[in-house]
Amino acid sequence: MTAPKKVVLAYSGGLDTSIILKWLQTEYGCEVITFTADLGQGEELEPARKKAELLGIKPDNIHIVDVREEFVRDYVFPMFRANAVYEGLYLLGTSIARPLISKHLVDLAHRHGADAVAHGATGKGNDQVRFELSAYALDPSIKVIAPWREWDLSSRTKLLEFAEANQIPIAKDKRGEAPFSVDANLLHTSSEGKALENPAEEAPEYVYQRTVSPEEAPDTPEYIEITFENGDPVAINGEALSPATILTQLNEYGRKHGVGRLDFVENRFVGMKSRGIYETPGGTILLEAHRGIEQITLDAGAGHLKDSLMPRYAELIYNGFWFSPEREMLQAAIDKSQEHVTGTVRLKLYKGSVNTVGRWSDHSLYSEKHVTFEDDAGAYDQKDAAGFIKLNALRLKLIGNRNAKFR
Amino acid sequence: MTAPKKVVLAYSGGLDTSIILKWLQTEYGCEVITFTADLGQGEELEPARKKAELLGIKPDNIHIVDVREEFVRDYVFPMFRANAVYEGLYLLGTSIARPLISKHLVDLAHRHGADAVAHGATGKGNDQVRFELSAYALDPSIKVIAPWREWDLSSRTKLLEFAEANQIPIAKDKRGEAPFSVDANLLHTSSEGKALENPAEEAPEYVYQRTVSPEEAPDTPEYIEITFENGDPVAINGEALSPATILTQLNEYGRKHGVGRLDFVENRFVGMKSRGIYETPGGTILLEAHRGIEQITLDAGAGHLKDSLMPRYAELIYNGFWFSPEREMLQAAIDKSQEHVTGTVRLKLYKGSVNTVGRWSDHSLYSEKHVTFEDDAGAYDQKDAAGFIKLNALRLKLIGNRNAKFR
Amino acid sequence: MTAPKKVVLAYSGGLDTSIILKWLQTEYGCEVITFTADLGQGEELEPARKKAELLGIKPDNIHIVDVREEFVRDYVFPMFRANAVYEGLYLLGTSIARPLISKHLVDLAHRHGADAVAHGATGKGNDQVRFELSAYALDPSIKVIAPWREWDLSSRTKLLEFAEANQIPIAKDKRGEAPFSVDANLLHTSSEGKALENPAEEAPEYVYQRTVSPEEAPDTPEYIEITFENGDPVAINGEALSPATILTQLNEYGRKHGVGRLDFVENRFVGMKSRGIYETPGGTILLEAHRGIEQITLDAGAGHLKDSLMPRYAELIYNGFWFSPEREMLQAAIDKSQEHVTGTVRLKLYKGSVNTVGRWSDHSLYSEKHVTFEDDAGAYDQKDAAGFIKLNALRLKLIGNRNAKFR
Amino acid sequence: MTAPKKVVLAYSGGLDTSIILKWLQTEYGCEVITFTADLGQGEELEPARKKAELLGIKPDNIHIVDVREEFVRDYVFPMFRANAVYEGLYLLGTSIARPLISKHLVDLAHRHGADAVAHGATGKGNDQVRFELSAYALDPSIKVIAPWREWDLSSRTKLLEFAEANQIPIAKDKRGEAPFSVDANLLHTSSEGKALENPAEEAPEYVYQRTVSPEEAPDTPEYIEITFENGDPVAINGEALSPATILTQLNEYGRKHGVGRLDFVENRFVGMKSRGIYETPGGTILLEAHRGIEQITLDAGAGHLKDSLMPRYAELIYNGFWFSPEREMLQAAIDKSQEHVTGTVRLKLYKGSVNTVGRWSDHSLYSEKHVTFEDDAGAYDQKDAAGFIKLNALRLKLIGNRNAKFR
Repeated sequence: MTAPKKVVLAYSGGLDTSIILKWLQTEYGCEVITFTADLGQGEELEPARKKAELLGIKPDNIHIVDVREEFVRDYVFPMFRANAVYEGLYLLGTSIARPLISKHLVDLAHRHGADAVAHGATGKGNDQVRFELSAYALDPSIKVIAPWREWDLSSRTKLLEFAEANQIPIAKDKRGEAPFSVDANLLHTSSEGKALENPAEEAPEYVYQRTVSPEEAPDTPEYIEITFENGDPVAINGEALSPATILTQLNEYGRKHGVGRLDFVENRFVGMKSRGIYETPGGTILLEAHRGIEQITLDAGAGHLKDSLMPRYAELIYNGFWFSPEREMLQAAIDKSQEHVTGTVRLKLYKGSVNTVGRWSDHSLYSEKHVTFEDDAGAYDQKDAAGFIKLNALRLKLIGNRNAKFR
Repeated sequence: MTAPKKVVLAYSGGLDTSIILKWLQTEYGCEVITFTADLGQGEELEPARKKAELLGIKPDNIHIVDVREEFVRDYVFPMFRANAVYEGLYLLGTSIARPLISKHLVDLAHRHGADAVAHGATGKGNDQVRFELSAYALDPSIKVIAPWREWDLSSRTKLLEFAEANQIPIAKDKRGEAPFSVDANLLHTSSEGKALENPAEEAPEYVYQRTVSPEEAPDTPEYIEITFENGDPVAINGEALSPATILTQLNEYGRKHGVGRLDFVENRFVGMKSRGIYETPGGTILLEAHRGIEQITLDAGAGHLKDSLMPRYAELIYNGFWFSPEREMLQAAIDKSQEHVTGTVRLKLYKGSVNTVGRWSDHSLYSEKHVTFEDDAGAYDQKDAAGFIKLNALRLKLIGNRNAKFR
Repeated sequence: MTAPKKVVLAYSGGLDTSIILKWLQTEYGCEVITFTADLGQGEELEPARKKAELLGIKPDNIHIVDVREEFVRDYVFPMFRANAVYEGLYLLGTSIARPLISKHLVDLAHRHGADAVAHGATGKGNDQVRFELSAYALDPSIKVIAPWREWDLSSRTKLLEFAEANQIPIAKDKRGEAPFSVDANLLHTSSEGKALENPAEEAPEYVYQRTVSPEEAPDTPEYIEITFENGDPVAINGEALSPATILTQLNEYGRKHGVGRLDFVENRFVGMKSRGIYETPGGTILLEAHRGIEQITLDAGAGHLKDSLMPRYAELIYNGFWFSPEREMLQAAIDKSQEHVTGTVRLKLYKGSVNTVGRWSDHSLYSEKHVTFEDDAGAYDQKDAAGFIKLNALRLKLIGNRNAKFR
Repeated sequence: MTAPKKVVLAYSGGLDTSIILKWLQTEYGCEVITFTADLGQGEELEPARKKAELLGIKPDNIHIVDVREEFVRDYVFPMFRANAVYEGLYLLGTSIARPLISKHLVDLAHRHGADAVAHGATGKGNDQVRFELSAYALDPSIKVIAPWREWDLSSRTKLLEFAEANQIPIAKDKRGEAPFSVDANLLHTSSEGKALENPAEEAPEYVYQRTVSPEEAPDTPEYIEITFENGDPVAINGEALSPATILTQLNEYGRKHGVGRLDFVENRFVGMKSRGIYETPGGTILLEAHRGIEQITLDAGAGHLKDSLMPRYAELIYNGFWFSPEREMLQAAIDKSQEHVTGTVRLKLYKGSVNTVGRWSDHSLYSEKHVTFEDDAGAYDQKDAAGFIKLNALRLKLIGNRNAKFR
């Protein structure tokens, strides 16, 4: 790879990406453009501007962008239409943010005539894969620089020495090592590494940052209603809200009731297992609600097909293949299924749990007339069931007769 | 169908199956053999013997059998190896009991030289399908009699008149109609119909029979440890227990902590949606624990394949195809995956929730050496990730270049 | 079911559907509208008009419609985008025509204010299911009359007696029974029953009607080129043609070279196995060509996903679920994949075989630069493969180490 | 990677692997053990012994092993039970041989106390992946040396110079470059590269080495019968034969009749497309025959499940994951399905085609009694079909009614 001339860096303003910024300048002598996204991680972003300026970035090269609505509307909601969970339990909060960041990096590269993008993910994790596959899909000729895989700053000590040598300010609490590593956005907060590396030991309470402990949650349940249109939530308790506002409000409900904690050991795409603590308060409520509205608006054929496609869809997002033809194919199928997923779900929140307790819709396929234990006025002829069973049984009978010959 | 001569009836001892018993005698003039199974439904079964005798059944024709160990060992545990849930949420508590009952009915038919079996399921539900597909698979020449699809006792009044006319005792509380219909066994209790037929309305608390309400559960969490061997639980808190004993104890833990309630609208195999309230206290704990132990003992390839097969496997059980070649094929694949699913999971129970908080195993694939944020002493070369990403990206780049030509 | 007042009948003009026509008039005293479709079955249809008039149908109630373009454009081509084959070999020639016929029956019912539709399929086959599921999906309130399941004309003798008693003309060659039953349309001809019912015996040559025997085909191969746009064929040997014209020409190529014969035992949806002889001359060429163009224009991710969805898609069409949400979901995914399936395939036809021998496209993903054995000028760094393999191997190594402990 | 001390080399005796042998000795100063397998590639292997000796390998370190029976019995036949084809057409002839070779390499490494294995596959293809994933799965601590990825012998000229400098004999016809690259074993011969790199051009006839051209094949068809037990072929024309003998004979039938040629563009696991010419004469016959016997002995449920699993199974073998838990899970499911796949198939071979024309079995599920157009003596009640269709239609009707509200 020839050295990059101009690089767009995913820049948080923190110590690590500040070191990367300086290292890019030092190592390659290249111009750096910074991209700092407000994904709803809950941090002030203006300090990132000041730090970038301090490190010599021209004001025109500093981009701080609120992408919360885009994130929820174009990434989170489409994913939730699929009821996507990875390995049965993980709601993909980190995975789904990476393609959006790459998209902005590549767009800025095109705007600035940059030939490379850079990120701060390490060489052991999934995020490097997600960043880079997305970037290459969007611009096959882009260079991607992953300093953690390239430099020789292999210990905390060396990093701090580099920072000091380059006048990068080090916050006091960054001198020691963090007890674990954190990623946050509007959908979730994940914590992993170090103090959490023994999967046999319960994660300490101080790891959790987005939710109160169920034990500390209110002693009385709270009920909320979420309204969906075409598979996406559009209102809470009857109030129409924008995508990011909906997720923000659901996060607050979830936080308060201790909903959405997950202690999880997962299989990384790069081949190893890792343990993470995830908090997805609003997303956990949203998944339950979406399942609830699908229960009455989605038919068995569509629903079962969706269920069978979901693991593959979730795996694609987890592995970083958001911008791939197969994800888009699955999305087309999933979106097709959501045309009548419209209606309202009532949920009960209580000390760590969220449960659907009611759902209604003009688009409902539930027919009390058919299902009733009472007289159904001829809606359903029970005698039809005899023929239905007979023909479903026919092949089993033929097998039974055949197998009996060889016992 | 020619009239049956000798019929084995799935007999609960309740009013409905007593009416069926008498109706079989009256309608067909046939000899009736009764089969009453202790599936852990929590009712005294000896009264069923007395009632059968009262209705003229010969003592040798009355069979009351404790099938709890068989049920859990040969049906429930194999199903839980698959992490089977129907339509995302239902743990198949009713579905999994039906093939076992049919197997006993057919076995007794062979023992007594009977030419038919009979069950008390209605013509609108799934259970008729499950009973009959199982019976036909096990004996293609057996007749199956489903009185609810045949007789003209189409209202509660007519049923009671028939009972009175035939000296069938009617318990006082059976005069009026039950507010909903219940099925119970060691795995779960389901409630459906009548008072529950409006899926918009929250189910009243009195519907729940197997669990305390989360609000009434203890204010302090309880921790338990479940040990697995080859995918099946074998011990609780270090004490080795039989299959049925394990499930019984887990039910008690679940009951106490309000775990395993589900308010659900599902798609019946016969084409309609229905709403059920399910309580699966022990099963809910078991599912969480099994996922927990698989997290460290099952590899990604095996786990993702299992996840993709699960919806089909669950659908087969729900639809009544336990005794089918495709269920057996899937079982062979699933069982193959469980050879090292051995180890212990630590769980936290609290007010309706059960969560894995730790897991350990001699068979663990989790490698702290590989995943660590610390120096890994060469276990993993981060540079390998660059090549891994490059080759995974190659096809996306080729697509990107191609598509760019047509924009 | 209350008696129908006005019925739209799928009417071929042959003896059987003429008997049905008369039987509907006799049995129900209802007005009959006839629908006769030119699906490319290769028969004169005007005689059907005469026969219908003879049987007392009003001219306004007689509909003879050329649906060939609609059939190929809206049913055959979408299906071929999926490379759909049922049970590995059958190209679904009968299955795909049924929903189109039902659509026209229902449309005519609405136009004429009819309350029922009728078809001439027997109670043992798949076609009854396909006709009726389609009709019910398109109009849930429509009545469907299937005379073969209702009447008592259970033998050939009784049918002929009914015909004679009702002045229905009987062609001389219909007095005796046909040695097998035939269905034909522009996509295929199927033959089954009677003389073909022993699957051990080779089908006699006289069964084949659409293709010369490979032994009789020309001794020199013929080459043709088919051009595709977005997954559909649009030209043969450079000449742009309409959908039905393309299939007609491919049929002629296939007929001449003995391409597309299939001797097959399949599983019917109604539970039994049956043996059929299928001739799909043009369709067999089209399938090979479509695979050929996908080889260079479809990426691995999209292609493998398509391959995994195909069996389910084919099963849905075979079973009669064309108008179902799950078929439409799969179609959405498949159609999404075809956006760049554009280009030309060169095929060799010779004595029963059709083989792709060349393919080219502006949309090609094939990169000689990458694959070449020669110097690739840096397009691909072979060292990347080392990292790729290492990370793909990591989980296998962890498994190997684990399993070694328990041997 | 530390330098290897003792290496087991997959050695063909040809120029390239002789250069590798010498390079290993030169580069690492290590002891080399050679493994030369008779996989049925049709070459004399004793010359390989002489060449190895000439290059200084000790006689005890030279292993020439006939693995044909093992190859067919333990690899080819299990794969054919699945009807495995990659991307619709390729019978995986190269892919399936690689894990066997790796197994022998690793076994010999253990026997000789070697710490490494080496192969001659290039860095652009699939074979490197297959060799190495298999080796790592079987011995996670083994070193794998892939000289083509490591050395600087990047041109034909440099290779020949190295050979001359090291006294490696160069056959006259190896001075120039081969026009394409060949791999052969008992299952197939593949040709790719150079002269074949333009997928638009028909492959010249001289590329084909294992089959006569269909035009040159006999003018009269030939019929053969293959007998299967539990999914594997055991006899041809009634004569019981060993696995390798069966495949050898089928190869001769296929060769003679020009059966099994494939011109194919495939997606390599490493991300690029490549074009190959495959000849799989016996395997093509075997696939057709296996499908033929499954048609009557496998039920719809088992067959459709197999069909849906097959693409994933084939992809795993193609990608090199033979020794993976997920391949073993799928194999368990597939093998379970083959318990009654026993019987005989009659096939017609003619000028490039092989077609099933008859099949029979004591294990047949085909029931002429059920399927017959004649009177079936009550085996099947056509009225059952009405109920079957009604309940299958119920959900479609509910959808139809719902959707009509929103049009």
